[in-house]
Amino acid sequence: MIAISDHKTGTRAPGAQQDDLLQKLGAICGKSNVLTGRQTSSYARDWRGQYPSHPLAVVRPGSTQEVSSILRLANEHGCPVVPLGGNTGLVGGTQTEGGLMVSLERMKRIRAIDPAGRTASVDAGVIVEEVNRAVERFGLRFPLAFGADGSAMIGGALSTNAGGANVLAFGMARALCLGLEVVLPDGRILDDMVALRKNNTGYDLKHLFIGAEGTLGLITGAVLTLTDLPTTYATALIGVNALDDGLKALGRLRRACGSQLEAFEVMPESYLKRLLGSQEAPNFPFPEVPVAAILVELASSSPVDCTPNDKGETPLIERLATELGDCIGTGVVTDAVIAHNAQQRAALWRLRDTAPELTKGLTPVVAADVSVPLDLIGEFEPSLQQSVRSMDPDALFWTVGHLGDGNLHIVVCTGDKSPEHMARVRNVIDETTMRFQGAFSAEHGVGIQKLESMSAFKSPVALDLMRGIKAVFDPNGIMNPGKVLPDRLPGAMHEK
Amino acid sequence: MIAISDHKTGTRAPGAQQDDLLQKLGAICGKSNVLTGRQTSSYARDWRGQYPSHPLAVVRPGSTQEVSSILRLANEHGCPVVPLGGNTGLVGGTQTEGGLMVSLERMKRIRAIDPAGRTASVDAGVIVEEVNRAVERFGLRFPLAFGADGSAMIGGALSTNAGGANVLAFGMARALCLGLEVVLPDGRILDDMVALRKNNTGYDLKHLFIGAEGTLGLITGAVLTLTDLPTTYATALIGVNALDDGLKALGRLRRACGSQLEAFEVMPESYLKRLLGSQEAPNFPFPEVPVAAILVELASSSPVDCTPNDKGETPLIERLATELGDCIGTGVVTDAVIAHNAQQRAALWRLRDTAPELTKGLTPVVAADVSVPLDLIGEFEPSLQQSVRSMDPDALFWTVGHLGDGNLHIVVCTGDKSPEHMARVRNVIDETTMRFQGAFSAEHGVGIQKLESMSAFKSPVALDLMRGIKAVFDPNGIMNPGKVLPDRLPGAMHEK
Repeated sequence: MIAISDHKTGTRAPGAQQDDLLQKLGAICGKSNVLTGRQTSSYARDWRGQYPSHPLAVVRPGSTQEVSSILRLANEHGCPVVPLGGNTGLVGGTQTEGGLMVSLERMKRIRAIDPAGRTASVDAGVIVEEVNRAVERFGLRFPLAFGADGSAMIGGALSTNAGGANVLAFGMARALCLGLEVVLPDGRILDDMVALRKNNTGYDLKHLFIGAEGTLGLITGAVLTLTDLPTTYATALIGVNALDDGLKALGRLRRACGSQLEAFEVMPESYLKRLLGSQEAPNFPFPEVPVAAILVELASSSPVDCTPNDKGETPLIERLATELGDCIGTGVVTDAVIAHNAQQRAALWRLRDTAPELTKGLTPVVAADVSVPLDLIGEFEPSLQQSVRSMDPDALFWTVGHLGDGNLHIVVCTGDKSPEHMARVRNVIDETTMRFQGAFSAEHGVGIQKLESMSAFKSPVALDLMRGIKAVFDPNGIMNPGKVLPDRLPGAMHEK
Repeated sequence: MIAISDHKTGTRAPGAQQDDLLQKLGAICGKSNVLTGRQTSSYARDWRGQYPSHPLAVVRPGSTQEVSSILRLANEHGCPVVPLGGNTGLVGGTQTEGGLMVSLERMKRIRAIDPAGRTASVDAGVIVEEVNRAVERFGLRFPLAFGADGSAMIGGALSTNAGGANVLAFGMARALCLGLEVVLPDGRILDDMVALRKNNTGYDLKHLFIGAEGTLGLITGAVLTLTDLPTTYATALIGVNALDDGLKALGRLRRACGSQLEAFEVMPESYLKRLLGSQEAPNFPFPEVPVAAILVELASSSPVDCTPNDKGETPLIERLATELGDCIGTGVVTDAVIAHNAQQRAALWRLRDTAPELTKGLTPVVAADVSVPLDLIGEFEPSLQQSVRSMDPDALFWTVGHLGDGNLHIVVCTGDKSPEHMARVRNVIDETTMRFQGAFSAEHGVGIQKLESMSAFKSPVALDLMRGIKAVFDPNGIMNPGKVLPDRLPGAMHEK
């Protein structure tokens, strides 16, 4: 299981090479920060337990300089390196057999906060939620909100270009990063920790590392952009007769509310039926299950928006009520309820946030995360459902997601749990997505889970350029090997 | 002057090689679209006439396929290729001696508009303003606003990652692009024309081409994001006693108005004095010249914001008046006037938009375009002025720019116009900018103008990675050679 190559370490036995490497790692960051054997078990298990690892060791550097020494050493030994943040990924991006896991858990420093420029400069090991706690006192927030943000670290959120519910207003993790510090596999440090909103000085290298899932270098620091902390929310659940009606409501709300519209989360009928049939079925506010329910949320930091009138309604709630009233008047929306307090808001969000629990007792399932252009999503969802059912009539199928981003998470609980059948179902999802000009990974990334999709559907020209870049940044191939980039096909058809 | 290498075309004389190349170009896109000699003169002159070119020919392809054939041919002949959009750049990014200029002026197709998804798919030869004309009827706009947007083409705006006055609300050109079509130097077409807001399927290659100034490939198409067309504006001029006070007003306005705040343009005293002393001095609304005047603009597409009250004031104007009134009350702002109609709004913008005319009769001048972190800009501006004056006490010096982005355009009209002295002045600007953790090019790019700054101030690690990427994408070095990437220093100190 040990993947250390011996072409640089001479003729010693593998065991001696390992001991040598571990000893040198201990010298770099202290013996207590080099974990082996059973000590690695909590790191070796990913969030969902789908991609167990057997690392050579877990090393916990305390500084960028230590990361640099570790990578230089690993590079000399030809030892695979797997960067490890909160380990909350869903696609096997940290899986390893014999590689060195580099955990950033000790690199948790908030380096600087600039309230005027609305930036925070942080170590990559800082947890997403901790950034928010650090900047809250300035009336600011880091507006990246996703299920795992209480565990996920900034380095991982950037390496996977995390998305979530607020992408509609603020973009993916990529859009929230101004600068990076990255250690390259040979130990060199790329210091691009700039807090600049305009910076046209050559190729924008940070965008290569963001979303590269640790295959090009190890992110050790980042300069993040911040936005105002909302002081008030207006949250509603609406029902629509078609996803295209949802898009009409989206257009109207955006025109009226601009970037105050922070979430537009869709729960199609397939999801609602599963949700309401589950054991802990939450209260559902509409008499009937609509074709889709959509969770709409406005947020504002403006003092004028948060002062309630004598009925206890804020101007923000009034604005939402007016717009939704008009949507109902024109028949675009069939039902609507607005939360009037934090408890009601939480109850509406629970409908959406229960999504991960719905697969309990059903695993393994085929879980996909796709996006399509917005004008096609209304046709895509039923078409996908039909394609899946035509090959597996008994499958449980539901979708839930971020309508404003054209992003649906798909769950198919197949009757036949054989890997072959499940692979066929995944392939049907991918093929349908590609037919609708979509992406087979919207926000979860490739990892090892979607390597076959990369081989099948990514443009050969893009793959060729990606491989060229990989060879420049990581000539020895030590950085998170086997992720993102599929092996070349037999016959190397994309070779020049 | 002819830069065709002969290592691939054998032993024929250069003249014969040229004739051969021109004939083949004519066969690809029609003889009338291959211009030589005097026919090239309007293409060979850049906007400001600072970087005259002597191209082998100007070729005007009509399709991506023709661009592909042209690049493949040029690559085989080792002939430099210079992509040409509206030719409005300021840094010599299209300068060539003997290269083939590929003008995109015939590629002007709006390929598709998705009003629901708010995207437009266009040829790279479409002029920025034309995108706006095409999407206006859907109540949408492409919110990239800069001086040359009536001439600049989408391909050039993306290749240079154009900025401008609305970056504060919408980001640079990079942030407004979802997908690209690029022809690589060997003629292969990278088709990444996706209209997806979430797309995590490997390295995000489009961000390499955006801002690469045509050195990695030739952009032939793009999918752009659109935003709502404002139906009403509220525009004001404010005076402040310090740039840091301007930042306080910025923070307050953002909290109150979110992304409705679209412009926050700063005109420091140095600029105002030059402006008001010029021949066509516009009316200035304040009794005295403040330390800085700032043009503030809110925009809204919300129907409720544009209905005027009985005094003719829209709710948007009332909001701005309230916030500025409070700023005056707390002493952050010293003076303020609000435009109450389109004419008054235009008059305020004229104060800012006159900037390019102020160098009339003074050229050559040292013109720089830098950015610094926002919390340092209040100290940076006077410090820079002092540094320049200490080496050239008689120089005319002014700055003007985008305060919300930390971006200042600097003009120094030196007494001594020798290239050596002007280079020293530029160097002082660069050094001061770097001392304040800034960028020596905020939005204009590198071209050939800032090659020395790249050599002196860009991280050697970044330069090394950029050169590696260039070698992968353009192994024969035909794409816009001599731009962006400085030659290696004698002794190749960055070589491994």
